[in-house]
Amino acid sequence: MNLEEALALWKQKLPETGCLNQLESETVSIDESLGRITAEPVFARLSSPFYNASAMDGIGVRFQDTIGAGEATPVRLTLHEQFEWMNTGNVLEDKFNAVIMVEDVQPVDDKTVEIIAPVTPWKHVRTIGEDIVTTELILPDGHRIRPIDLGAMLATGLTAIQVHKIPTAMVIPTGSELVQPGESLQAGNIIEFNSRVLAGYLTEWGLQAERSPIIIDKPEALKKAISDAVAKYDLVIVNAGASAGSRDHTAGVIGELGEVVLHGVNIRPGKPVILGIVGGKPVIGLPGYTISAVLTLNLFVRNLADSLLGAQSSPPRLLEATLARPLSSKLGVKEFIRVKLGQVDDVMMATPGGRGAGAVMSLVQADGFLTVGANSEGLGAGEKVLIELLRDEHEIQNTLVFIGSHDNILDVLANLLHRLRPICRLSSAHVGSMGGIMAIRRGEAHLAGTHLLDEETGEYNIAFIKRFLPDIPLQLINLTYREQGFLVPRDNPLNIRDFSDLTREDVRFINRQRGAGTRLLTDMHLNRLSINPEEVNGYDREEYTHMNVASAVASNNADTGLAIRAAAVALDLDFVPVAEERYDLILPKAYLNDPKVIALLQTIKENEEFKQTVKSLGGYDLRDCGTVMYEQ
Amino acid sequence: MNLEEALALWKQKLPETGCLNQLESETVSIDESLGRITAEPVFARLSSPFYNASAMDGIGVRFQDTIGAGEATPVRLTLHEQFEWMNTGNVLEDKFNAVIMVEDVQPVDDKTVEIIAPVTPWKHVRTIGEDIVTTELILPDGHRIRPIDLGAMLATGLTAIQVHKIPTAMVIPTGSELVQPGESLQAGNIIEFNSRVLAGYLTEWGLQAERSPIIIDKPEALKKAISDAVAKYDLVIVNAGASAGSRDHTAGVIGELGEVVLHGVNIRPGKPVILGIVGGKPVIGLPGYTISAVLTLNLFVRNLADSLLGAQSSPPRLLEATLARPLSSKLGVKEFIRVKLGQVDDVMMATPGGRGAGAVMSLVQADGFLTVGANSEGLGAGEKVLIELLRDEHEIQNTLVFIGSHDNILDVLANLLHRLRPICRLSSAHVGSMGGIMAIRRGEAHLAGTHLLDEETGEYNIAFIKRFLPDIPLQLINLTYREQGFLVPRDNPLNIRDFSDLTREDVRFINRQRGAGTRLLTDMHLNRLSINPEEVNGYDREEYTHMNVASAVASNNADTGLAIRAAAVALDLDFVPVAEERYDLILPKAYLNDPKVIALLQTIKENEEFKQTVKSLGGYDLRDCGTVMYEQ
Repeated sequence: MNLEEALALWKQKLPETGCLNQLESETVSIDESLGRITAEPVFARLSSPFYNASAMDGIGVRFQDTIGAGEATPVRLTLHEQFEWMNTGNVLEDKFNAVIMVEDVQPVDDKTVEIIAPVTPWKHVRTIGEDIVTTELILPDGHRIRPIDLGAMLATGLTAIQVHKIPTAMVIPTGSELVQPGESLQAGNIIEFNSRVLAGYLTEWGLQAERSPIIIDKPEALKKAISDAVAKYDLVIVNAGASAGSRDHTAGVIGELGEVVLHGVNIRPGKPVILGIVGGKPVIGLPGYTISAVLTLNLFVRNLADSLLGAQSSPPRLLEATLARPLSSKLGVKEFIRVKLGQVDDVMMATPGGRGAGAVMSLVQADGFLTVGANSEGLGAGEKVLIELLRDEHEIQNTLVFIGSHDNILDVLANLLHRLRPICRLSSAHVGSMGGIMAIRRGEAHLAGTHLLDEETGEYNIAFIKRFLPDIPLQLINLTYREQGFLVPRDNPLNIRDFSDLTREDVRFINRQRGAGTRLLTDMHLNRLSINPEEVNGYDREEYTHMNVASAVASNNADTGLAIRAAAVALDLDFVPVAEERYDLILPKAYLNDPKVIALLQTIKENEEFKQTVKSLGGYDLRDCGTVMYEQ
Repeated sequence: MNLEEALALWKQKLPETGCLNQLESETVSIDESLGRITAEPVFARLSSPFYNASAMDGIGVRFQDTIGAGEATPVRLTLHEQFEWMNTGNVLEDKFNAVIMVEDVQPVDDKTVEIIAPVTPWKHVRTIGEDIVTTELILPDGHRIRPIDLGAMLATGLTAIQVHKIPTAMVIPTGSELVQPGESLQAGNIIEFNSRVLAGYLTEWGLQAERSPIIIDKPEALKKAISDAVAKYDLVIVNAGASAGSRDHTAGVIGELGEVVLHGVNIRPGKPVILGIVGGKPVIGLPGYTISAVLTLNLFVRNLADSLLGAQSSPPRLLEATLARPLSSKLGVKEFIRVKLGQVDDVMMATPGGRGAGAVMSLVQADGFLTVGANSEGLGAGEKVLIELLRDEHEIQNTLVFIGSHDNILDVLANLLHRLRPICRLSSAHVGSMGGIMAIRRGEAHLAGTHLLDEETGEYNIAFIKRFLPDIPLQLINLTYREQGFLVPRDNPLNIRDFSDLTREDVRFINRQRGAGTRLLTDMHLNRLSINPEEVNGYDREEYTHMNVASAVASNNADTGLAIRAAAVALDLDFVPVAEERYDLILPKAYLNDPKVIALLQTIKENEEFKQTVKSLGGYDLRDCGTVMYEQ
């Protein structure tokens, strides 16, 4: 079933459950009502003000007594008979019908004042009901109560109102492999965090969300958990067991207890979602992968949550952007692609990111989702696309977009920049040195990081800039010198010394992706030694960051890989140095006056914490940090 | 001092207090951390996944064993030796290095499977650290934690993190005239609601806001309250006592206890604000009028709240609009004007609203603030203005804009429309029948309400449309017939029978504003009886709604006024009928297909609750409701 059909079916089925028709309400004190949704219209109990009040500091008078007053013909008034002193808010006695501001009153003696201008009736008087007249509508029903609404309701003498009850939701994590955070872990365990993420979204949407204990993969256990939950909660989420595997019981159990409205939607990620109804309550089975679960929660539960709240749904936040790279998509499936956004040269560029359904960090770092329809095989670079935002637009507009080679210093910079200039965010995409240069050429990034050695000149980066970016005025600014070398387990058990060791049968190498400066360094050395890449066991296995190479070695998925010393230090590996190389930033001159860029350059040039932190990472030399190495 | 100087001074003084430099942090469980602000960068404790895991349901294999497999050359694998069955997430044993999807596996017998394609190394394997490598940055500091962030942190084995403490604020209501909501009221009392409104905003901004008991107008009492508060809270708000009156002690007390940084800013409303520092804590004295207090809280406390939270400030939500009417402003003072917004004909029109600092309802109903600089004497109709929004833009875009004559049915309609079509909101401005016609002419409203009798023809509304709206294709649709008459206290003590009674010396009349249909009705009758308006005591006193006229009579501010029967019924007054009149809606044909208009017309034509509610109001006849009376 495609997504549109699924949403239509769900929208049609839900009212049949009755769960949306009879929203329960409760009485709450107005003092406790902030953010709640009114369950009936709120009418004024008293008028406000409920007595005639002075709107100024001054004197209360009868306007008739002031007629004829003028500079040449001042009028004198007598205390208690013709006037009374008043503070703002004081009651205007019935015998008076106007107020004269204190600035316009000239005291003569204890009991007499003089005025030099007449006053019109009810001048500077807040008359009864001036703000609100009793019985008038203050708030319609279905209104989310704001701070100022508290004032309007209390001002008219109300103390309590009817609001919709806060709907409740139960999130049931299932899976025998799950363990609670903090419990001891062994291989095969999965830390149970999805229920926290899902309950977090439900909480942000205004529901009272709870989490059940972990339910093991047995139909009876799940059956009891769902039965108990539908008896008590307005909405039940089961995560996961939604696939078709031998341990996936969710659909079967929902079917036994009630009705499976739908199992499986033609989307990616999120295909195996289950929409069900048990005991008149919506029961939704979400896929196990976090990204799939979050996406299907948004698609099928978000509007339902608003309906249960009695609130109006907010439309998604959409933003038009330009696709930075071509994107392929599977025909016949609607795909939701995580993208990063960056405003570069007044163009909002969308760069597609990781597509793995288990890649939690890719969603942490994503700025939005791009939807590619089932009828599309993909989109071309430069196409206009509509992005559903995951962050505020102003946050995206204040994002400094870095694309290029990975280095651990980028984490340090991201963090410091955000602290020193909280509105700034550094977004970095690690696509290798060549990817960075191409991103600058396409206007996709503010700056790129690169460490490309030109074999002929022995110079870093400049030859590549001249070849690929000849027409762009730019500065090449050094960030650091750093050591590259072989990462090996402690004490180097296979005794790896140089590139010739990579051809050994007992050595499993792990490589970097095409376009990475480190990959080119490897190729250069292999070439010098006339080693055919096919002789290297693992040459085809690619990782995208130094840390992933280090991780492969640390976890014995590989025996060695080429990476920077900082990655070895971070994961407590040994390091066999190969070269010192120069890592520079390419910065088009067009962005030199961008405040984000200025903040970044200031940080790398002047900030002591930056220098200290980088040194502690290991393998860096900042002797030229911030220096312009070349410009054009 | 002008606003810009005041803000600059405040921004300069605050860091001196130290309150912003040493934000306290605390450890919280990640399960409790949603919405909190990180106090330090968060790094991954473990890699995720922390073991090599199958990414699919299928079999774990050594890729070497699959080389050469093809349709013609299937390869058989033996259980436990060459393969293991795997569910998604299962541990891939060290001896294996790839997974084949279950769909591509042909079981032969209990212990044997057949495959017909080779697999590449690490295919369908989530390798250690694929998502996050231990020690990598997950979140920078100063980051507000979102639901997905919980997942990323928990996935790497973290269970607790450092976050900034939630800053605390104390709101101190002062004033001997204040009483708590629900306490018995007498004239001169003011219900204490400002502290609720102010604490409400502070809560929405993320602070933990508390309210103190009411402090009476004695310096010693206020001194103790402020001293106690600065010892315990990060921020103290005093409301009010900020003016220069005899009972306004706030500035004096702040000065005695610490420093008054500033008293009085050249803005309206909000002039008497006090910014102070006591014991290193910001102490802000806000004016007593609610609108002034809310405005100055936004101007001087909102960014401070973000700083105390350790969070980045969101920029104001701004929207360009076209000013619907000219607007005068006092030279030398920066004015903040409440406006209503409505998108009519693709133009966002801003209509200035009530300017009284005590008019709480005008802020409840406002959509935004327009700022008029100190150097401006006003703005012209049609000028482009920038509005700071108080509502979401989509809510404004879904607002049906009614301008014209007041009728109590509008409350009923506003409420029903919102319930039946929650995204729709009816915004009504009561400026009289002629005001409504002019609003249609200016493209300022979707529809107008009018009840203008043409004396020559005896017909309602049509003559006025022909004169003032000759070129606009429109429909004139009846809403109701209604009774107009004299509102008088119960049993009509002054025995008012007709318009000739208005000239009596003992009768205090209250009139409607110029342009109101009811005003014209009065004038017509006075004219017929050859009564000079100057003979009517109170002819010059104007109210803008039927309900305000009723309120004046009910509170003995006047003896009688002309209004609809529903207003008499609402306030339990007696009613002396004068005329039945026709109240119609003017609807330009351009808006006939607008879904909001369609919903409104459906409601008045078909909705039973609408009919019943209107009847219960008294004095209405719906015999032509929804009928097109005229079109052009």
